[in-house]
Amino acid sequence: MEKKIKTLGSLTAGPMQVFLDQVDLADGQNKLRIKIDYPEAAALLAFLDRDHVLLVRQFRYAVGHETLEIPAGKVDPGEDPAASALRELREETGYRAKKLEPLFTYYPAVGYSSEKLTLFAAAGLVRCSEIEDQAEIAAVEKWRISDVLDWIHSGRIIDAKTALGIMACTSGKAAGWLSEVFPE
Amino acid sequence: MEKKIKTLGSLTAGPMQVFLDQVDLADGQNKLRIKIDYPEAAALLAFLDRDHVLLVRQFRYAVGHETLEIPAGKVDPGEDPAASALRELREETGYRAKKLEPLFTYYPAVGYSSEKLTLFAAAGLVRCSEIEDQAEIAAVEKWRISDVLDWIHSGRIIDAKTALGIMACTSGKAAGWLSEVFPE
Repeated sequence: MEKKIKTLGSLTAGPMQVFLDQVDLADGQNKLRIKIDYPEAAALLAFLDRDHVLLVRQFRYAVGHETLEIPAGKVDPGEDPAASALRELREETGYRAKKLEPLFTYYPAVGYSSEKLTLFAAAGLVRCSEIEDQAEIAAVEKWRISDVLDWIHSGRIIDAKTALGIMACTSGKAAGWLSEVFPE
Repeated sequence: MEKKIKTLGSLTAGPMQVFLDQVDLADGQNKLRIKIDYPEAAALLAFLDRDHVLLVRQFRYAVGHETLEIPAGKVDPGEDPAASALRELREETGYRAKKLEPLFTYYPAVGYSSEKLTLFAAAGLVRCSEIEDQAEIAAVEKWRISDVLDWIHSGRIIDAKTALGIMACTSGKAAGWLSEVFPE
């Protein structure tokens, strides 16, 4: 257990708040902790067929370069994570999905962030509109799952949610769901 | 591409710095971005045998409760990520490992953190000392991989690096390495 003594400073950017807190550790030591209050998030593997997914290319300011990632974003206040995942799919790629399956929920950075992200797998994709997030999404790309897996190991894909989603779909319970959706 | 206009504020806790920056987006819009400068990190799956790993139980201030995670920590200045992973194993669990295999490197939270984490798998574990991080580690526990996989889906395990490591070892290239280390 770590107990807050006081907040020494904070920063705010939209729905994201960062606190610098002085805390008491179990053994009576004092320590500084960064704590990010982050809204809930959702991300989805958008399967065009059993072997291909949509990835979005976008510039990430915190890492200083473009990344290839699965569609994702913050859950709006009052919104359901599943609805949020489908909204982000539409805004970032212009596609909607007829089928959606939750995979699991995890915390990307438990050491300093309260962010909680639910991963979904989506199928039955239909192109329905233009990309709305033109300022943030540089491109929407179709890639083979086997290539994406290789790129996780080679370092071309660096994003945690993309790696987790792909691995969950190739090995886990979601593989069964995919077999139902895309029977061979 | 997003270009910094200016830094509006910052917070520092040890080797971790947080910046609130005003940035120019590709289309000329202005936006606030939180950017965490975080040291490199390392984590490892510590295999006691082919079916069991060591997990550490620790209180995580940012999420407000205890978590079950694989051993992990920051890479010290001038330290190699592999050396860091073995040091964290020793400090957090009291074990050393005779064999270490890199899995891959990823970024846990590309939306706001520069943190880069390298995952390893370790085998040939030998208990060598007491737990050094007594103030932060509540317990060291031995668990079945199949239970850990179930708990990722049920929400009992919420930590991204633990989920990624377990999935990489059960499905990916690391599964081959494990078969070599623990032949049946």
